[in-house]
Amino acid sequence: MTTATPILYESKGSPNARRVRIFIAEKGIDIPTKPVDLGAKEQFSDAYRAINPRSQVPALALADGPVIAEVLAIWRYLEEAYPQTPLLGSTAKSKALVTMWERRAELDGFAPVMEGVRNAVAGLKGRALSGPHAYEQIPELIARSKQRVADFFADFNERLETVRFVAGDDFSAADITTLVTADFAANALTMPIPVEHTAFQRWYDEVSARPSAAA
Amino acid sequence: MTTATPILYESKGSPNARRVRIFIAEKGIDIPTKPVDLGAKEQFSDAYRAINPRSQVPALALADGPVIAEVLAIWRYLEEAYPQTPLLGSTAKSKALVTMWERRAELDGFAPVMEGVRNAVAGLKGRALSGPHAYEQIPELIARSKQRVADFFADFNERLETVRFVAGDDFSAADITTLVTADFAANALTMPIPVEHTAFQRWYDEVSARPSAAA
Repeated sequence: MTTATPILYESKGSPNARRVRIFIAEKGIDIPTKPVDLGAKEQFSDAYRAINPRSQVPALALADGPVIAEVLAIWRYLEEAYPQTPLLGSTAKSKALVTMWERRAELDGFAPVMEGVRNAVAGLKGRALSGPHAYEQIPELIARSKQRVADFFADFNERLETVRFVAGDDFSAADITTLVTADFAANALTMPIPVEHTAFQRWYDEVSARPSAAA
Repeated sequence: MTTATPILYESKGSPNARRVRIFIAEKGIDIPTKPVDLGAKEQFSDAYRAINPRSQVPALALADGPVIAEVLAIWRYLEEAYPQTPLLGSTAKSKALVTMWERRAELDGFAPVMEGVRNAVAGLKGRALSGPHAYEQIPELIARSKQRVADFFADFNERLETVRFVAGDDFSAADITTLVTADFAANALTMPIPVEHTAFQRWYDEVSARPSAAA
């Protein structure tokens, strides 16, 4: 089923937007995009709040209705609307395994990188959590977040010693979140893949060579 | 498609396990369960680690293969294997909306309740996060978590002023997470639904009267 084309609001600097861009590139579909200038705080403008009241990117405005926010929700819409090249699994079991491993990559890897950044950066004082509400930074979270990122690299290295891709035999959304997390950790926390985690590095070299990784 | 029946490892005291029990009750299916005694720390036993190395419940052991952990992954498996009474949406748009609202209930409501509890309870010292790794509690998180739970009640009250169920017209997994969050906040943080949030209370009265809520 393909419906009228939606519009993706996104930002080149947003790791969450990159998760959606890679997904779209892997599917080989063409979704028009509109940039949101996070540097100029455009996400807090009245115009963007009318699109996404939570002031977050990415957001997918459907041609015939609501705006879909949250990466997992945008992915789910795109997977259903453009079923070619499934990235969320193709059987009951593989759908469950992709959900499980993508979630672990997000909760154990991506979220701690984000937490480490948002509780540290001076420009995010009073914005420790993304979304509509103001929360103060908690500096004690920085060290804990970095320890969690180190544990994520170790746990996923162990996983990748036994499988080609994060969720098993096939490239999936779990690889997308893991790739974006690895680059995000290297760039924002100066935590590249530890040299001893050779299975993680082998996997990284393979997935980052895919054309979609440039998205 | 119905395959050989899996086995659900769960605990009556686990709010995450309750999310799966309600889902199963709403579907009207019969899944055999095995209790895991969290009070006796059975989740850390060698026997249970062989089932789920992350020492978490719930976990769904498939008859023909891997163990599926993580509530969202278990739901996804059950939805695919037992498609009657869809709880994750039935069209591309409703699947996306259920994913979006369920995620907000979890990240803005359920997770802050859990964070408030795990960083406070004496018996969870050194176990501030569920899973295989030991992390120290950060007492500063307790107040921030409670503020987030208060914001969740207000935000979802506003949502429920305009819709019957959290994701729209139909009962869905988003209602399950919201219901479990409300009961968890009342029981574990002594934060019941604020009296001024009448739309949230109207919704709560309706969903908690469903037979599945007793699960």
